[in-house]
Amino acid sequence: MTTPRERIPVGILGATGLVGQRLLRALEGHPWFRIAALAASSRSTGRTYGEATRWVLPGSIPSAAATLEVRPCEPGALEGCRVVVSSLGSDVARGVEGAFADAGFAVVSNSSAFRQDPDVPLVIPEVNPDHLGAIAAQRSSGRPGFVVTNPNCSVTGLALVLAPLHRAFGVRRVVVTTLQAVSGAGLEGPSGLDMLDNVLPYIAGEEDKIERELVKILGQRDGDSSIRPASIAVAAHCHRVGTLDGHLEAVSVELERTVTPEEAVATLRGFRGAVADLRLPSSPVAPIEVRTEPDRPQPRLDRDAGGGMTAVVGRVRPCPVFSLRLELLSHNTIRGAAGAALLNLELLAARGELPAE
Amino acid sequence: MTTPRERIPVGILGATGLVGQRLLRALEGHPWFRIAALAASSRSTGRTYGEATRWVLPGSIPSAAATLEVRPCEPGALEGCRVVVSSLGSDVARGVEGAFADAGFAVVSNSSAFRQDPDVPLVIPEVNPDHLGAIAAQRSSGRPGFVVTNPNCSVTGLALVLAPLHRAFGVRRVVVTTLQAVSGAGLEGPSGLDMLDNVLPYIAGEEDKIERELVKILGQRDGDSSIRPASIAVAAHCHRVGTLDGHLEAVSVELERTVTPEEAVATLRGFRGAVADLRLPSSPVAPIEVRTEPDRPQPRLDRDAGGGMTAVVGRVRPCPVFSLRLELLSHNTIRGAAGAALLNLELLAARGELPAE
Amino acid sequence: MTTPRERIPVGILGATGLVGQRLLRALEGHPWFRIAALAASSRSTGRTYGEATRWVLPGSIPSAAATLEVRPCEPGALEGCRVVVSSLGSDVARGVEGAFADAGFAVVSNSSAFRQDPDVPLVIPEVNPDHLGAIAAQRSSGRPGFVVTNPNCSVTGLALVLAPLHRAFGVRRVVVTTLQAVSGAGLEGPSGLDMLDNVLPYIAGEEDKIERELVKILGQRDGDSSIRPASIAVAAHCHRVGTLDGHLEAVSVELERTVTPEEAVATLRGFRGAVADLRLPSSPVAPIEVRTEPDRPQPRLDRDAGGGMTAVVGRVRPCPVFSLRLELLSHNTIRGAAGAALLNLELLAARGELPAE
Amino acid sequence: MTTPRERIPVGILGATGLVGQRLLRALEGHPWFRIAALAASSRSTGRTYGEATRWVLPGSIPSAAATLEVRPCEPGALEGCRVVVSSLGSDVARGVEGAFADAGFAVVSNSSAFRQDPDVPLVIPEVNPDHLGAIAAQRSSGRPGFVVTNPNCSVTGLALVLAPLHRAFGVRRVVVTTLQAVSGAGLEGPSGLDMLDNVLPYIAGEEDKIERELVKILGQRDGDSSIRPASIAVAAHCHRVGTLDGHLEAVSVELERTVTPEEAVATLRGFRGAVADLRLPSSPVAPIEVRTEPDRPQPRLDRDAGGGMTAVVGRVRPCPVFSLRLELLSHNTIRGAAGAALLNLELLAARGELPAE
Repeated sequence: MTTPRERIPVGILGATGLVGQRLLRALEGHPWFRIAALAASSRSTGRTYGEATRWVLPGSIPSAAATLEVRPCEPGALEGCRVVVSSLGSDVARGVEGAFADAGFAVVSNSSAFRQDPDVPLVIPEVNPDHLGAIAAQRSSGRPGFVVTNPNCSVTGLALVLAPLHRAFGVRRVVVTTLQAVSGAGLEGPSGLDMLDNVLPYIAGEEDKIERELVKILGQRDGDSSIRPASIAVAAHCHRVGTLDGHLEAVSVELERTVTPEEAVATLRGFRGAVADLRLPSSPVAPIEVRTEPDRPQPRLDRDAGGGMTAVVGRVRPCPVFSLRLELLSHNTIRGAAGAALLNLELLAARGELPAE
Repeated sequence: MTTPRERIPVGILGATGLVGQRLLRALEGHPWFRIAALAASSRSTGRTYGEATRWVLPGSIPSAAATLEVRPCEPGALEGCRVVVSSLGSDVARGVEGAFADAGFAVVSNSSAFRQDPDVPLVIPEVNPDHLGAIAAQRSSGRPGFVVTNPNCSVTGLALVLAPLHRAFGVRRVVVTTLQAVSGAGLEGPSGLDMLDNVLPYIAGEEDKIERELVKILGQRDGDSSIRPASIAVAAHCHRVGTLDGHLEAVSVELERTVTPEEAVATLRGFRGAVADLRLPSSPVAPIEVRTEPDRPQPRLDRDAGGGMTAVVGRVRPCPVFSLRLELLSHNTIRGAAGAALLNLELLAARGELPAE
Repeated sequence: MTTPRERIPVGILGATGLVGQRLLRALEGHPWFRIAALAASSRSTGRTYGEATRWVLPGSIPSAAATLEVRPCEPGALEGCRVVVSSLGSDVARGVEGAFADAGFAVVSNSSAFRQDPDVPLVIPEVNPDHLGAIAAQRSSGRPGFVVTNPNCSVTGLALVLAPLHRAFGVRRVVVTTLQAVSGAGLEGPSGLDMLDNVLPYIAGEEDKIERELVKILGQRDGDSSIRPASIAVAAHCHRVGTLDGHLEAVSVELERTVTPEEAVATLRGFRGAVADLRLPSSPVAPIEVRTEPDRPQPRLDRDAGGGMTAVVGRVRPCPVFSLRLELLSHNTIRGAAGAALLNLELLAARGELPAE
Repeated sequence: MTTPRERIPVGILGATGLVGQRLLRALEGHPWFRIAALAASSRSTGRTYGEATRWVLPGSIPSAAATLEVRPCEPGALEGCRVVVSSLGSDVARGVEGAFADAGFAVVSNSSAFRQDPDVPLVIPEVNPDHLGAIAAQRSSGRPGFVVTNPNCSVTGLALVLAPLHRAFGVRRVVVTTLQAVSGAGLEGPSGLDMLDNVLPYIAGEEDKIERELVKILGQRDGDSSIRPASIAVAAHCHRVGTLDGHLEAVSVELERTVTPEEAVATLRGFRGAVADLRLPSSPVAPIEVRTEPDRPQPRLDRDAGGGMTAVVGRVRPCPVFSLRLELLSHNTIRGAAGAALLNLELLAARGELPAE
């Protein structure tokens, strides 16, 4: 494996945003990677990162990053990198990320732009690392680089928790209601006026993402062909609530066979994920933690479990309508965004999929 | 009908609580009723209402009430009343309310104590006023007074909205997730520590109440016998969120036949309720309001519709798992508590069911 | 006085903003005025008010206004009006309001643009209605119309409360710390990310406005000359806190002579203001209410006193450093903005200062 | 110095409270101390700590502590300890802490009970470690143990920041307004109903504590006699706001000589405190951090500076009424409570003042 003195240089696209800030923090002192370039939109280029960024995480901008000049999101501007992590807005991501892949970069993207492309893998390392095989399809189309994506912030925790249940018992139908934190909307998220003493019962595009991304992640690759989505009916109800971090989700799930809550809990607790052997630096000890108090998980108390990379499940109980009900929480800007992308990057590195410098 | 100068004297049991405060406000200047006595637990008796009450509604305690002495919750202490509205805690309500009914009082209760008793009606005037027929069963058991109850604060809005859909299309299954305001837990509700940057994914007893009360309300009286619950499977997921008033609920509903969102909206908008002709003073112009913006209802913007007595529905759309999805909001301490009890009291008065003085 | 059937047509400049929305509400059914035109920036013109406005007040956009076309902020576009109320942003207000005054309009402005101009009155009707005399100075400079301003939202309550103390006891020094609601920053105010579990200890330009506007309001007109500011040293510390409406201010004040809290309270309670005889429609019964509970005023409980037009004072007590300490609250978008402008407009109408149509 | 294998056994009085929870966390893995006993009121005794405690910090109760039996707050019940840290409520603290001191214990108290006793030191190690000399006075009165206290949570940060200014420039008068977090009121603090969309402008006893504790801390010991308070006039205005942790304070200060903001900043930045040489485990690298952005410190962003032990200052600027204005923040349950007590305990250990076992 790589050693500290040969850490892989990585560029961040969309570095000034909220997920970009989390990425910066996560890459500080990372054993395998080092930040080589910070790129953002033309509003920020030409200024230092410290000048261009409205930093909203506790403490100060890492001093090493503060003085870096923000570069434009163009392959030519990121000389010295062959790998970029992107948290660009979906409006520009398709064009920019495509250009980087065309220029030979490995693009590890948190954006929604390519998630539904048939030859772009939508990956959670613990759940469907085999979907990375789709990279070959991208290469065979003549593209020198590739794009790998991670799911929407409200999908990652849900997919992590449903994956072992699906494998063990077969998931047929899911009704999920989300209570999502404001950080999920980024720096330009909802106003205080909207979020104090209020709930927004709508997040544009979110329900559709949940319904489509979940079945792709839990779907199967048939040989070299594209991914066949899982046959699961999913109904999502999305809300923005006045929490800072941590998406909470109430789930009713129909399984193919009768299962007791105890069996479900045992299955969730036994889940280690498909890549536990690789001991990736950002992998939590357990991808899923199950709590047994009646009133957990709670965003403030549980979002940082496993450094924000563990999904916390509670209230596993029978459902009068379907098979099981449960509550789950995962940290939306770590497990649901920056940490998700970084874990994918680590998986690519461990598998030797990153371009040689 | 009664006229202002012969307004019916009413006592409030549990007057110092949050629902008691709302009742006090609602009864100020009521055309049919006047407050004759305020009663509360022994912590408060012997002091004036102003001294005993931690008033949490905007403005000041109504000056007429502030100087009333708080009486004990005993029938003998409320001479001058034959009618009481109770918002007692469920721990004491059964004993106290039973004693008042035994003493010949009409007890209109917001408490959960008697809601599931077979001969106690659980009534929403617009939905099931015929259930009041159960009073006769109470009387025939030799009790000189009677108890009438209204549903839990998270049930009223749900039942109001599902009632016309059930009548028109047949409701089979419901998955409902609530985002409930802190006022629903009363004066001793969750702490700031629990509610800032947090959600509590649990409210003791609440899910069970939703599942049992909904089917009783939508059930049918067979002749003089007790109420046969509706055959609807209900799964509830309850949350306490950081809003002050207004319970928001995300609902997926399975109907007996295929329905378009437009048909559902037309049905909801056409609903006037079973007692519209009576023009009860607390009846809103419309029991249900349907909004068509993508992001409504919102607690802060919509809870006061119809003076807090109108349930507001939005986002009526197809459900990938069941027939329909929608979002609904109702004011938990008005339509879900004080206003619910008062409307029941008005209905009893209009029907001549209240004891003569 | 005017009668309903000859209500004066009024235009609103900046109608889509938060203060514009409050103005719209306040002018619905006003006995003296009617809305004749809604104007806003070029982002909104050409659309109906309903389409152009992100409405954030409870309930719906008044239906009469919803279908009005939004006009540009140009005198020629507001034919039919001779009077405008402006809540334009300070960046454009100076140019636009000046153009309207040059075109003969009476401009009643909530903007900061002209507040410090020597011949522009900065008026709170209860405090310094005589400052309206400065209109004459504007006219004598050849301008056919005029501009009258009201103070910043954090100043109005402070000036209202200090005015009677200044008159009775002489205010020398003031240290004031504000805890301001998010609505004070308008529709584009601080994000949920900034306001949840947080306080912003800074509001750009606000401390300077408090220090300069207070002394102008409490200053004196010497004959026809401009206003001589009061000799009061003012130090302000401004904060944005997570409340929706209602600016709370903690004040330590040095007086010219020793005063007991009781004397101060009596003075505050005795204050009726300089124009009480005019019974202006928006005048509250009392401009100042003094509460004696230890923990009032509170934003949620007290901001709507007097329909949002009454400043609420509490905790009047000795100050170990100066003479007195007290806490005051006033509704920032009503008394501090829309209501302030409307009260000025009413005063102008009552005095016959508005241009004939 | 002590080594890990001879860590000093420490008991916690009031272990189930919020400060007790912070103490538990801080003592986990402490290099000098180990938790030997957890004591609380009779509501909790006889149960395990896990059963008795409503844990409100992120994550779970430390597993080692969860199974400890909670003991009564009596010296005889804490065999094996000679040192206790107390975070008892002020109602019982005087009796209990006195009993422990009489029984020979070193009592390091966060309670207010003894803070104003003339022979009880009120200590911030960086500011007035010499006040520990008062322990001798306690001993000379025949008491085998002693009590050492730390200040109120709203005083510690203020005293830390004013200490170097007082030493350098002489502080004469202070007007301070606090915006205090809900955690300062402990587990039974203000309700969600009080703290959502609201501010409480009153905290019982708090203003008096600030005014009296600050001058004791900045006062001088004259030989062996008791402490002579500093001659500083202090006026405090206290508020509870909707933040979880971190007390923010706006300060206007009058100094004996004219000082520029730059001089003040240099003095604050140069402050290392009186015991920096001891390198106490809980000492932050810098007791005071000065930020220069216009809008800092902010509770969410700055409270964890220095592990919650650094006071963060910002907005140092001239004051139109006094000499300087500034904003300061310190973590109320760490620097203002648990960390304050622990730092005092460390100082006592380093000085050899703790009783031999």
